[in-house]
Amino acid sequence: MGFTSDIEIARAAKKKPIQAIGAALGIPPDDLIPYGHDKAKVGAAFIKGLAGRPDGKLILVTAINPTPAGEGKTTTTVGLGDGLNRIGKKAVVCIREASLGPNFGMKGGAAGGGMAQIVPMEEMNLHFTGDFHAITSAHNLLSAMIDNHIYWGNELGIDTRRIVWRRVMDMNDRALRDVVVSLGGVPNGFPRQTGFDITVASEVMAILCLSRDLEDLQARLGSIVVGYTRDKQPVHCRDLKADGAMTVLLRDAMQPNLVQTLENNPAFVHGGPFANIAHGCNSVIATTTALKLGEYVVTEAGFGADLGAEKFFDIKCRKAGLRPSAAVIVATVRAMKMNGGVAKADLAAENVAAVQAGCANLARHIENVQGFGVPVVVAINHFNGDTAAEIQAVKDHVAGLGAEAILCRHWAEGSAGIEDLARKVVELAESGVADFHPLYPDAMGLLEKIETVATRIYRAAGVQADSAIHEQLRAWEAAGHGHLPVCMAKTQYSFTTDPTVRGAPTGHIIPVREVRLSAGAGFVVAICGEIMTMPGLPRVPSAEVIRLNDQGHVEGLF
Amino acid sequence: MGFTSDIEIARAAKKKPIQAIGAALGIPPDDLIPYGHDKAKVGAAFIKGLAGRPDGKLILVTAINPTPAGEGKTTTTVGLGDGLNRIGKKAVVCIREASLGPNFGMKGGAAGGGMAQIVPMEEMNLHFTGDFHAITSAHNLLSAMIDNHIYWGNELGIDTRRIVWRRVMDMNDRALRDVVVSLGGVPNGFPRQTGFDITVASEVMAILCLSRDLEDLQARLGSIVVGYTRDKQPVHCRDLKADGAMTVLLRDAMQPNLVQTLENNPAFVHGGPFANIAHGCNSVIATTTALKLGEYVVTEAGFGADLGAEKFFDIKCRKAGLRPSAAVIVATVRAMKMNGGVAKADLAAENVAAVQAGCANLARHIENVQGFGVPVVVAINHFNGDTAAEIQAVKDHVAGLGAEAILCRHWAEGSAGIEDLARKVVELAESGVADFHPLYPDAMGLLEKIETVATRIYRAAGVQADSAIHEQLRAWEAAGHGHLPVCMAKTQYSFTTDPTVRGAPTGHIIPVREVRLSAGAGFVVAICGEIMTMPGLPRVPSAEVIRLNDQGHVEGLF
Repeated sequence: MGFTSDIEIARAAKKKPIQAIGAALGIPPDDLIPYGHDKAKVGAAFIKGLAGRPDGKLILVTAINPTPAGEGKTTTTVGLGDGLNRIGKKAVVCIREASLGPNFGMKGGAAGGGMAQIVPMEEMNLHFTGDFHAITSAHNLLSAMIDNHIYWGNELGIDTRRIVWRRVMDMNDRALRDVVVSLGGVPNGFPRQTGFDITVASEVMAILCLSRDLEDLQARLGSIVVGYTRDKQPVHCRDLKADGAMTVLLRDAMQPNLVQTLENNPAFVHGGPFANIAHGCNSVIATTTALKLGEYVVTEAGFGADLGAEKFFDIKCRKAGLRPSAAVIVATVRAMKMNGGVAKADLAAENVAAVQAGCANLARHIENVQGFGVPVVVAINHFNGDTAAEIQAVKDHVAGLGAEAILCRHWAEGSAGIEDLARKVVELAESGVADFHPLYPDAMGLLEKIETVATRIYRAAGVQADSAIHEQLRAWEAAGHGHLPVCMAKTQYSFTTDPTVRGAPTGHIIPVREVRLSAGAGFVVAICGEIMTMPGLPRVPSAEVIRLNDQGHVEGLF
Repeated sequence: MGFTSDIEIARAAKKKPIQAIGAALGIPPDDLIPYGHDKAKVGAAFIKGLAGRPDGKLILVTAINPTPAGEGKTTTTVGLGDGLNRIGKKAVVCIREASLGPNFGMKGGAAGGGMAQIVPMEEMNLHFTGDFHAITSAHNLLSAMIDNHIYWGNELGIDTRRIVWRRVMDMNDRALRDVVVSLGGVPNGFPRQTGFDITVASEVMAILCLSRDLEDLQARLGSIVVGYTRDKQPVHCRDLKADGAMTVLLRDAMQPNLVQTLENNPAFVHGGPFANIAHGCNSVIATTTALKLGEYVVTEAGFGADLGAEKFFDIKCRKAGLRPSAAVIVATVRAMKMNGGVAKADLAAENVAAVQAGCANLARHIENVQGFGVPVVVAINHFNGDTAAEIQAVKDHVAGLGAEAILCRHWAEGSAGIEDLARKVVELAESGVADFHPLYPDAMGLLEKIETVATRIYRAAGVQADSAIHEQLRAWEAAGHGHLPVCMAKTQYSFTTDPTVRGAPTGHIIPVREVRLSAGAGFVVAICGEIMTMPGLPRVPSAEVIRLNDQGHVEGLF
């Protein structure tokens, strides 16, 4: 290609004006709210007007458990979108927005890679259209209104020891994890211990991503539990009358962002909740809008299929009434080798036996996804150095499970390298074999839901949780939250809670250390292991080398 | 007019597409970066290309000391811009952006009022083009890098007791004024006491507003003093290598925002530093760009002329090499009455004697501004209820000083009501009588500069400052900061430091309680009185009633 990096490819992209991208989807220019020449939001009124239209077909791209070798899930999502367009299907890609803060620690991420990317990359790794800043503002307005309410008399009787609503910042700043606020005497309020999370961990982010429209958004914001009284009664956002102003702050952010792939196909990049303490999918409104505008919508879920696809199905699809038609599980020969026990340093050597052993991990994910009633195809994301025998080993293993694995070269070739996968996806989707159903019914008890995910998806022997957690879950059921799905916060690297255990383990125990209620987003979080909600910067943060070069391009961010 | 409020007028505005507004200034559509259909940033490359062009004439709009009666400075700035366009001059208005946070405490502000407004009002009071969010991010990145540097070994030897760089949030949140961070043990760093200011109080805001271009911006950011070592040596932003990444975060924010008046004339709304601990003017880059594009640029400075105009002249004009051609001092009959001792409740009754007495305040400001070598005209911003005799009293008083006071009805009539003022401004500007010079030379000592402002502008008998302040100022002179101008932080309501003393007092003492170095912005702040850098919310914040109505408009914000 003559390029050495994703950013060089992205900068050389022949972008079309965003109005042309919108026009191809039938969006009139007046209904596109431009942010520069290559980004736009789709207006709320236009979206409302789509209500009567039929939906296109929804394709989920998910993956094996991630390894340091990289699997290329977003790259395959983008590539498949381009591939479907190439074979004559009107397809739209839907992915998440990137978080600003972490880019100043480690290098920022491309949206895809090689010849399968979404552009403009620089903007998407910086302020983009301001959605995350709006979420930060809305979250922190509620925080300020809590302390302000207490300052002026605390009419609601909030127990300052039981405030669960923290503050957020889109920054890696470990100094803010654990703080004492309101020092300095009477004019500054009542001192108490609290902390900051990174913005993507905000429940406001999860709410924005699960809301159908602005009314739904405001209702969900109102339902946020910010803390408890001394007699443990919940205090809600709407008790503080913060929900209206928060909705105003989020009005623009609720409108999906339209950008384009390198091949000038449409992509919605909207929302970006954590994939551990939240559900890890792009916004419902972007997905439902795309389904009205395209014949195919290709979207992805965070992490591997055990976490990401499960939440996509059990939280996003359940809540939004989405019915996926097919799923693509992305695997690489290299990741199979690592799952088969090969160290990263030894990946270059051919090792068919290790590939075969590692396929156990892939097989588990195939079974799991099929268990939701969704047909599966495996995409082998080709890397230079993969040998024919290794590729064949993956294909054979998958064929043995009654599915198909297809080699894809979209990273190097763009849509031309992924036509076979696109055709297979169309075949599966149009066959009508999909019969989506979530893993468990709404009516199941909260603990039983956690156990169901642990045993059926993670193949654990069971769940360990102490009596306080049992009690808390029963209390939430008594308060009317029993119908909520559960959102598992667990390491993405393993079916167990030990990130070093690769492959397809069984018989392990999933310890539930803590449970949290996200009453506005509409799920109960089960925390199984260490979950970091405010990252720190490394010893040498990438911020130290990030700068503008003579051409005004950003150096050091990628 | 049939309208009952500024927001109703603003919503009924017949806005032109922002490309049409840009075209009237000769900005090609490709050099406008749209944010929606009615806002755009002017591209940096286009601005660079303007370098060789001649400058238009710069007109400052300033005012008497503000009173609760309101003087209408922004309204007059906007009206004069429209008035100049009406009489055939190509005029551009330059004002500051509004801060988001305070809008959730008290009602948000219009940009102007009545028939002299800049639109879109809602967006300008919310996220606008994201500039303030970018400033928040850049500021807090530096904060995070300071604590991160200490965490990883503190190679620079920063004394954690002497860190002067705090964090910021664009929110009224008193709980954040005084906090302890880095609690929670080893992984979270070294606990220390610090706090948050509101974003507009950030030195980054002042820097952005004083920078000529991105290179200048980065150099100034690098010069920020973030703290001191144990032996009191300064540690700079560039020692932490944060300046490049901060510049990247501010790249878009550095580009001026173009919007329009109700009469479809161009307005730059860009930057918004505090007018007490900073210089209170819109950005230099907006003003210098406007001067290349318009025959006339009408801009304003914060608060009354004692604070705002003095800083405009001594900081902004001095630093940016601007030479204003004329100044308008806005006064109202009502404000004259209040300066003459009338209580707000008694403003309705005619009181010529009080008007005459209050004119002493106006006279002082006229003299002060003329002292900078800038010719003055007084705009009497007409209010319903002003009597002919009261208006005449102001005119007579000003005529007695050799200047002219002109009645303006732009609030009710738009540009048609301010033609006389526009003609007078053109007459003054084209007469060439302006001979601008700052109040004091760069070479004067820092304390002497403070004394010069206090005695020559505030007409104080002198300055009181204890020996620690004398010592600090001498230390900064020794460190090479002696050439900087001073930025006075003082109540805006009086020439004294007592906000209740109206009129034209003399013989008072100005106590300097604290001095701060803004080495990046390029001034030394002299704090004379209580200055609040993080506001709180009131007992009933306006956030409680802010919401979207059925039309999707924001209610309760205005």
